[in-house]
Amino acid sequence: MGSDMSLWFRYNLLLAAAYVSDAQYNRNVPFRTSPQAIRLYGLYNHRATRAATYFFICVSLSLALFEEPALFPLPFWATSAAEVLCLTAFFGRLVHFAKVTPQKVFWKDTKNICIMATIALTLIDLIIYGSLEAAHIHSVRWSRALRPVFLINLPESRQIRRALRSIRNTLPDILYVLLLFLFSVLMFSLMALKLFGDRGLKTAEGTPYFTNLLEITFELYVLVTTANSPDVMMPAYNSQWWYSLFFMAYLVVNTYIFMSVFLAVVYNNYRKHLKNEIRKLACLKRHKMVEAFHLLKVKVGPESVVTEAVWKRLARAVAPGISSSHLELLLRISDEGQKGHVDKTNFLRLADLLNIEVVTVNIRRHPLEAWVPRVYQSSASLLVQKMVRHRIFVWVYDVIILINAVFIALDERNPFISHAEWLFLSLYVLEILLKLYTHEPRAYFGRKQFWNCASLKGCVPFPARKYKSQQILDIVLILRILRLLRVIVSIQRFRVIVTTLINIGPTMITFGGLIFVVYYAFAVVGMELFHDKVRFFDPNFTAPAALVCGNPALAGSAFARDGYCRNNFNDLASALVVLTELTVVNQCGPLIAGGFALVTHQAAKLYFILFHVVVVILIVNIFVAFILEAFFVAYSLEKSEIETAIEKKIQELGVGIPEEDEQDGQLTDVDAMEGGLGGGEGDSRRAAWRGLYCRIASKKYRTVDTLLQRMFESEIAPDDEGPSLDEILNFSPSDMYPKNPNFENSA
Amino acid sequence: MGSDMSLWFRYNLLLAAAYVSDAQYNRNVPFRTSPQAIRLYGLYNHRATRAATYFFICVSLSLALFEEPALFPLPFWATSAAEVLCLTAFFGRLVHFAKVTPQKVFWKDTKNICIMATIALTLIDLIIYGSLEAAHIHSVRWSRALRPVFLINLPESRQIRRALRSIRNTLPDILYVLLLFLFSVLMFSLMALKLFGDRGLKTAEGTPYFTNLLEITFELYVLVTTANSPDVMMPAYNSQWWYSLFFMAYLVVNTYIFMSVFLAVVYNNYRKHLKNEIRKLACLKRHKMVEAFHLLKVKVGPESVVTEAVWKRLARAVAPGISSSHLELLLRISDEGQKGHVDKTNFLRLADLLNIEVVTVNIRRHPLEAWVPRVYQSSASLLVQKMVRHRIFVWVYDVIILINAVFIALDERNPFISHAEWLFLSLYVLEILLKLYTHEPRAYFGRKQFWNCASLKGCVPFPARKYKSQQILDIVLILRILRLLRVIVSIQRFRVIVTTLINIGPTMITFGGLIFVVYYAFAVVGMELFHDKVRFFDPNFTAPAALVCGNPALAGSAFARDGYCRNNFNDLASALVVLTELTVVNQCGPLIAGGFALVTHQAAKLYFILFHVVVVILIVNIFVAFILEAFFVAYSLEKSEIETAIEKKIQELGVGIPEEDEQDGQLTDVDAMEGGLGGGEGDSRRAAWRGLYCRIASKKYRTVDTLLQRMFESEIAPDDEGPSLDEILNFSPSDMYPKNPNFENSA
Repeated sequence: MGSDMSLWFRYNLLLAAAYVSDAQYNRNVPFRTSPQAIRLYGLYNHRATRAATYFFICVSLSLALFEEPALFPLPFWATSAAEVLCLTAFFGRLVHFAKVTPQKVFWKDTKNICIMATIALTLIDLIIYGSLEAAHIHSVRWSRALRPVFLINLPESRQIRRALRSIRNTLPDILYVLLLFLFSVLMFSLMALKLFGDRGLKTAEGTPYFTNLLEITFELYVLVTTANSPDVMMPAYNSQWWYSLFFMAYLVVNTYIFMSVFLAVVYNNYRKHLKNEIRKLACLKRHKMVEAFHLLKVKVGPESVVTEAVWKRLARAVAPGISSSHLELLLRISDEGQKGHVDKTNFLRLADLLNIEVVTVNIRRHPLEAWVPRVYQSSASLLVQKMVRHRIFVWVYDVIILINAVFIALDERNPFISHAEWLFLSLYVLEILLKLYTHEPRAYFGRKQFWNCASLKGCVPFPARKYKSQQILDIVLILRILRLLRVIVSIQRFRVIVTTLINIGPTMITFGGLIFVVYYAFAVVGMELFHDKVRFFDPNFTAPAALVCGNPALAGSAFARDGYCRNNFNDLASALVVLTELTVVNQCGPLIAGGFALVTHQAAKLYFILFHVVVVILIVNIFVAFILEAFFVAYSLEKSEIETAIEKKIQELGVGIPEEDEQDGQLTDVDAMEGGLGGGEGDSRRAAWRGLYCRIASKKYRTVDTLLQRMFESEIAPDDEGPSLDEILNFSPSDMYPKNPNFENSA
Repeated sequence: MGSDMSLWFRYNLLLAAAYVSDAQYNRNVPFRTSPQAIRLYGLYNHRATRAATYFFICVSLSLALFEEPALFPLPFWATSAAEVLCLTAFFGRLVHFAKVTPQKVFWKDTKNICIMATIALTLIDLIIYGSLEAAHIHSVRWSRALRPVFLINLPESRQIRRALRSIRNTLPDILYVLLLFLFSVLMFSLMALKLFGDRGLKTAEGTPYFTNLLEITFELYVLVTTANSPDVMMPAYNSQWWYSLFFMAYLVVNTYIFMSVFLAVVYNNYRKHLKNEIRKLACLKRHKMVEAFHLLKVKVGPESVVTEAVWKRLARAVAPGISSSHLELLLRISDEGQKGHVDKTNFLRLADLLNIEVVTVNIRRHPLEAWVPRVYQSSASLLVQKMVRHRIFVWVYDVIILINAVFIALDERNPFISHAEWLFLSLYVLEILLKLYTHEPRAYFGRKQFWNCASLKGCVPFPARKYKSQQILDIVLILRILRLLRVIVSIQRFRVIVTTLINIGPTMITFGGLIFVVYYAFAVVGMELFHDKVRFFDPNFTAPAALVCGNPALAGSAFARDGYCRNNFNDLASALVVLTELTVVNQCGPLIAGGFALVTHQAAKLYFILFHVVVVILIVNIFVAFILEAFFVAYSLEKSEIETAIEKKIQELGVGIPEEDEQDGQLTDVDAMEGGLGGGEGDSRRAAWRGLYCRIASKKYRTVDTLLQRMFESEIAPDDEGPSLDEILNFSPSDMYPKNPNFENSA
């Protein structure tokens, strides 16, 4: 092997490691293949540099808290210095990236152009604003709305970008529906004007009813959200009962049908593009693994293989922190026949293997068994262990938790109930002690960390009360109630739903990011438009200005009457709260819009309508589409579980912990299985992982993306090289559908 | 042929006609095959008997208007006599059906059992109520809520039954999600109780905040509908800002995620069952056509065929009103080679052929061409005709309509604008005259009836104003504005959406029926529970009782304060209005529920929660699922239009009017095509339909069901007999999915 370690081989290993690492994390950055560029690329992907970038993004975004209109005011020089620092950091990151990636790719990537343009625009804005400020002329810091661009264009924000791309791809289709929808609203408004305008009807406030086309259009647009549902209809309904049919027709057409059509269009596009992108990811991953293979292969007989030593070096290069027993296990899986080399099919799996979170658990005897074997193995002790392992033991504790929940709901001041709490506490402690007696302690805490922590924390409400710290008490209370979740998860039918909901979790964070980006941009624009138009006074402050939120234009308006003064755009936090209230579509939306239109101009309503279109029609529908898709994937997989080849292999080797055991908590039972492992061969390798168990990160908790990607991967033949890079990059959603639509296609 | 006309042949023809007729209308009633039973079956399906049944169902349902609490009170003897009459009619219909269908099938059919049980229960209720009433004891007419059963079990209500079956099939799945959802609401309520109950917080009305678990649960359930969104949070939010996080978490989990999960579960089930049922329908149709073929076939050479004479008799028996030219066309399509007989493949198409609405249009020369040929054929006249047929002519009139719409929006009292209306009127008259000059009048009015009627009616606003009848004016006004639709339809991208929306139309009626059934049942129950608890007084009536809706329990409540007295259950109409308001989820829902809980008991809220679960969670979601599916089918077909074999044949024969011509209004251009029809053969048949055009009912307007059924039919090979009857009846949704889920499957 020594002579192989030439410079050329080192270089190949470095490059292959970069490819495999990219495949493992689904990174798709084309990088230059010079040794220096590869090292720079490694640094680019390093945890520290990424963390630094995140830090500067957070600083940049949080500047809005300190700039006028500010929550915590800071002088202009301080915020602008911080901003320049952030911009420098982003620029440095960009230069770093330019050194890693080929020039042509760099200049073709819209992400980079976006970042550069944003940096330039922000600097220009900063200079203009600064010089105008120096001359005491007030101007607008418009570039602040661009700050989320840095967050979106982070390499790790792939999901946010995908959601945004999904929105962009949906736009042409949704635009036509939107136009048709607006046309329908306009047509109904015109009818309403003609039907009700001349009747001399009055609204509940005594103003003329439906005489101005623009006002009618706004009222009817609001009716789509059903926020003003009975009120807008009442004057007409009181005059002639059959006028209510007009409003019912309007609701059916615009609220029920058009809103569903929006969902249909968004969902259809979301699904199409999601699948195309994930297919692309799957193919790119395969492509990278094939590249890595070609770099490292050697000829052994008729076939190309990678020798064991090279394979190990590669794995260590990709995952420096890998334990030797884990590596041994992976090798055992990849080199099934123990021929000393890994063939192509198995090599291509390396990224997946590294992605499988293997928790190595040393199965040891219970410490008590070592210390007092006689007592631990006595028939009474065995009976206790059997009891604790029994299903009924779990059920009994589920019932106890339920009873405890009932007691929590009852009045705590009753002494009987507060004493019962002590009983529950001792029961929980007993449960933990019994389980610790039965299971090996490290295995017990390792496996179901969450529930055990919850048990422990849930047990300590009363001692904690002595601290008198309200926040800690509140959290402990919530944890006590969360114990109820354990009961739910133990029922099979609920588990499927809960599992899917948990699978959705990681991607929910994406949506959180997406919504944050949109909220941030709207909040900054809203702050520029509406800051200090409305002011909030302390409720005890009874000056006449407090009644009209400090703005005489609001005198007699519903906004001031209902005490909505706190809903203002005077700082970032308030603005975000207002936008949240607007997202939850209900009657307060139009009130807020009406209030801000009064203090500025009727055109201000456009801001609120735009927000509704973007957030409620687009983003909420994408969110619903995402959950629908997640459930459909979960449902279609639930009935016939596919075990991937890798997992089968681990099971075949007998080093996996069967899932049923895990669920029932019968961990030590697998001892029996271990005996059969490895067959009759007594080679030295086995010793390395004797008594070691590999637990695959539970099959139950997988994201939709992972499931979809696995489906596409299973479509590529195991040793196929897949389509070429150019083909992959030019995949289009329409390729996926056969030309002649068949039934499945319409599904 | 004469000797063939034996009794046996007549019987076979009768039976075959019954099969073909069933296939044509997708009826799936197994009937006895005795000649008498077949004739009775014909009578059972006759228009008159069906109309009579509908009439009695309407009478039965409308009885709720006349019974206490009544809109138009009638004495008890009158309504009960009418009810008994209706029940007799339903029973007669059932006896008729029992004579038609085999005994075993009759008693196995839940529809019949349902009807019988409902008749018996209604009679029992009627007798008990009558005798108690005679003894002046007030009791409850509970059987009135069962009346929609008759509507549901009509053979024509297949779609309503399917929607109900879809709900029933979804129930097990939705139940688990519902339980989980309620569990989640309860868990959050428990947390809220512990977090906020001891804080001594007050609501805006000064009552203690979040101290009663039941009230918290109701408030949080209402929060799911976002109706009380800011109000329920405010006391906690004012106390500690971070308590708002609790409510945000609640909204994300229960409003956004759980509501999407409900949609996902309902949609998944709806799609699965819809497809299964439609596949069943397609197979049953094929099965019936095969049966009919076997009854009538004769051997000609190696293959079994149906002779032309028999085929014609059959078609006449199935469709007695068919014109001879239409029949000749169908024969021409079925017997392509004019061999004097129809083979099996073509015979199986008969039901589809009869289903295609063929409008025969006699292409004649323009009357003016006959009267003054010289003038009509002059170059100036031809130029006018060419102009009118040009696309630009249509566009010009679209622009005119748009300008007219702007004028409608402007103030009519302005004399300039009211004169402009006369200009538009003359322009529209000119358009009609020009078109009449260019196109053959009958063809013109035959083709685009709707738009032309709209044009004509839209033209007469001013003369009509002289009648001073407000209602007529209103309708004319709406028609004038509906002209705008014509502009929209002329744009290709909009046409797809509008077409799909129109396709949805017929099935919308189903949903109307379904919602009516549910509303009716809830209204009757609500009337029994809440009638006369709340009373509405004329607004001018200022007695103190009017302020509390006639019920002192409402003193100081939001229900009375906001003047919701009219929202009561005192008669069927009011009850239906209240239920409609509850369907449009917004702030008035909890107000109404709260009001009725005050005048009766807190448990009354259960009625409103149940209504919300059934209508908003189940039915509205099925509606959304239906629209989603309709759009997905429309999208998947839009790109690659499938012309069915039949339509191709009509096009091949050259007797179809090309659709493009239809759209552009260039009807007479097809004259040229007619010349090429029939090739060189000059047989006598051609004369029968010379100058005749067959217009296929436009491909654009097809329901989702039809499209889906056609897809399944295209999967059965043209001369295949399809699966056996038993197999068809035992189709289950899970059969449709391959065992190993592949990618399409998850779509």
